[in-house]
This record gives sequence, structure tokens and C-alpha cells, in this order.
Amino acid sequence: MARRPGRPRASGDPDGERDTRRDVLDAAAALFCTVGFTSTSTRAIADAAGVRQASIYHHFAGKDAILLELLLGTVRPSLELADALAAGTEPAAARLWTLVHADVGLLCAGPVNLGVLYVLPEVSGEQFAEFHALRARLRARYSELATAAGDGADDRGALVLGLVESVILRRRDTPDLDVAAVQGAVADGVLRLVGCTPAEIALARAVPVALAV
Amino acid sequence: MARRPGRPRASGDPDGERDTRRDVLDAAAALFCTVGFTSTSTRAIADAAGVRQASIYHHFAGKDAILLELLLGTVRPSLELADALAAGTEPAAARLWTLVHADVGLLCAGPVNLGVLYVLPEVSGEQFAEFHALRARLRARYSELATAAGDGADDRGALVLGLVESVILRRRDTPDLDVAAVQGAVADGVLRLVGCTPAEIALARAVPVALAV
Repeated sequence: MARRPGRPRASGDPDGERDTRRDVLDAAAALFCTVGFTSTSTRAIADAAGVRQASIYHHFAGKDAILLELLLGTVRPSLELADALAAGTEPAAARLWTLVHADVGLLCAGPVNLGVLYVLPEVSGEQFAEFHALRARLRARYSELATAAGDGADDRGALVLGLVESVILRRRDTPDLDVAAVQGAVADGVLRLVGCTPAEIALARAVPVALAV
Repeated sequence: MARRPGRPRASGDPDGERDTRRDVLDAAAALFCTVGFTSTSTRAIADAAGVRQASIYHHFAGKDAILLELLLGTVRPSLELADALAAGTEPAAARLWTLVHADVGLLCAGPVNLGVLYVLPEVSGEQFAEFHALRARLRARYSELATAAGDGADDRGALVLGLVESVILRRRDTPDLDVAAVQGAVADGVLRLVGCTPAEIALARAVPVALAV
């Protein structure tokens, strides 16, 4: 093991620190979603990532810390966008449409359907509190935008987050999903769900939102 | 092992066949959803169910067959209701509302959140084809009802099934969920999602559907 040659590094990062971290996350993501979290050892992750097992522990406290980092990556970019959109001046329906479109894109991005990890029994544990806190903040942003955009009849944040996250199972059912089509369909669907009229939805699609990614 | 006394049976079923089968399914459901599917052995299921390991194999070909039976139980009752409603004469919106209400109730029923098993890597396998077939038929029923009830703009069966199944993650987030409230909120939400007007939704809630359970 000690004499295993280092893996060629694509970037100019001299010590390969960033690459190692990324390689470990990518390898773990693939194994967690195919073999399963419980059945995957840090040894297996090291083998798949082409790094030594000790390198993993240099970057992560253990398997739970790797899973936490993967889970945070499925929420953090959407929450940052939601925070930015909360201060926007565009109509609320246009900002909600933009957020849903980006969030669905994030959940469908990458080679691995990381959202399936949400339901792992282990993820209920205290060590994943940061993930649950971020997701709760995202749900709260959806509630605010849903109330501002729709008929405001009742709190629909959980329904909206549910429809957004339904792309996890959908991607699982249909591996070659047309992501762009699903992004538009879910974003339109969310606006109907919160009580927007067809005219309001057409307008929301047409208004450019400065922070859209 | 051979001398372990039989567990007391609640029913009058003399040979305890039905009870054993049910006990095995209940014990397996609890273990699959807490310990995880991969980490659960048939031995552990037998211990938790209070039966001999050989009794499990009398009823099921193995762990996959137990999981299949559990998965089918999360879809079959809703599909039977959907098939019955397809022939109904009530307005489509009322039938769709009734189906969603019952389906959400089914997914929230029982002590264990079985829907989390949908995303297990193992469930992609051919041995679970019957589950996928039943779920595809349920999705098709939702498509039919969504087209008939809503504005018929495009096929919204996948969106509707997605919003219904979002209660799986919601139940996971909130173990003491107010199921009756969620049933109504999701059923109303589905009608908005397919393009029903507030007046149509109010009517759908008010029309009694003969086959409602």
C-alpha cells in the first residue's frame, strides 16, 4: 500500500490537496448511491478514489463527515441563491420560479443522484444537524416566496420543497431524464401549486431575474 | 433454537400461518427502515419476529421477496382504488382528490415509513419489476385523472405522483405529522398543480365519491 504511486492530477494544484478531497467525495458519492452507505468502507472509498486510506482521514473525520459534506452540497448553493433572491426587487413569482429552476437543476446535477441519501436511517443522527438546519432554512425561504407569490392562503413551503425534491425519485425512475424540461415543468408547477394564475406564471417566466444562474 | 417456544398468537388462526407472515413483514419493515436493508439478515428478522429462520423461508424466498411484498403494499391499495375511480361518474377533480387523499393516507399509515425503501439501490433490480410496474400503472392513472380534471395543458402524471410521494420525506422530517391535515393539503395542492380553479377545488372537496375509503 505505502508504495502505491500517486494518481495523476489534472489540476496545477501542487500538493493535490483539493483534488484528493474532491476525488474522495466523488468516489464516496458513487459508492453510497450504488453499494449503499452501510456497506461502503473507507477502505473501499480510498481504493475507488485512488488514494491511501490515511489521506481520507487527513481530510475527513470519517464516513459520516464525507456523507455530511455530500448532503450539504445538495442544499448550500440553493440556499445561497434563495438568500440573494430574498433581497431581490423582481416580482416574487419570478424569483420563486428562478429558485425552483436552479434547485431542480442542482438536484439533477452530477453523475450521482445524491438526494437518495436524504432518507438513509443514519441521516437522522445529530452529526447531520447542519444539513437539517440548512434544509429547514431553504424550506423557510420557499415559504416566504410562496406566500408573496401566490394567493397566500396558507403556508405552502413544505409542499413546494416536496415538489422540488420529487425530482430525486423521478431521476431515479428515469436515469436519462430531460433535465431542462423537468426544470421548467417543476418551476411552472410550483407557481400553480402556490396559487398563481396562468397569466402570472407566463409573466414570471418572462421576467429576467438578475441573480439567475 | 429448535426448542424456542412459539410466540403467543392473537388471532384464532390455528396454525399461525397468517400471523407468522405478518410478523415477519412487520419485523422486516422496522429493521429495513432503521438498521437498513443491507445490514439486516434474515436471522435478525427471525429474532425480531419471534419465529424460527426456517419459518421465514417457508413464507418468502428470501430478503428480496420480503422487501418486494412490503413495497407492493405501498402501491397496490392505491392502484385498486385508482382502477375503481377510473370507471366513476363523479367529476374528475373529485375523483383525483379522493385518490390523492387515500394515497397520502396509505403512505403515512403504519408504524414505519416504508416509502423510504423506494430509493434503495437494490430496488433497481429485476426482482422488483412487479413493484415498478404497479407504480407505473398508478402514475398512468394519475395522468388520466390530471388531464381530465385540470386544464389538460400537458402530461402532469409525474408531477402529481411526485407531490403525493413527497409525503415520504415529509414524514421522515416530521415524525408526528398531522396526517389528516397533510392529506387535505396535498389533495388540494394536486388540484391546483393540474390547473383547477379555486371554485373547482371547493366543488371537488364537496362532492362525495362513492368509492372513497
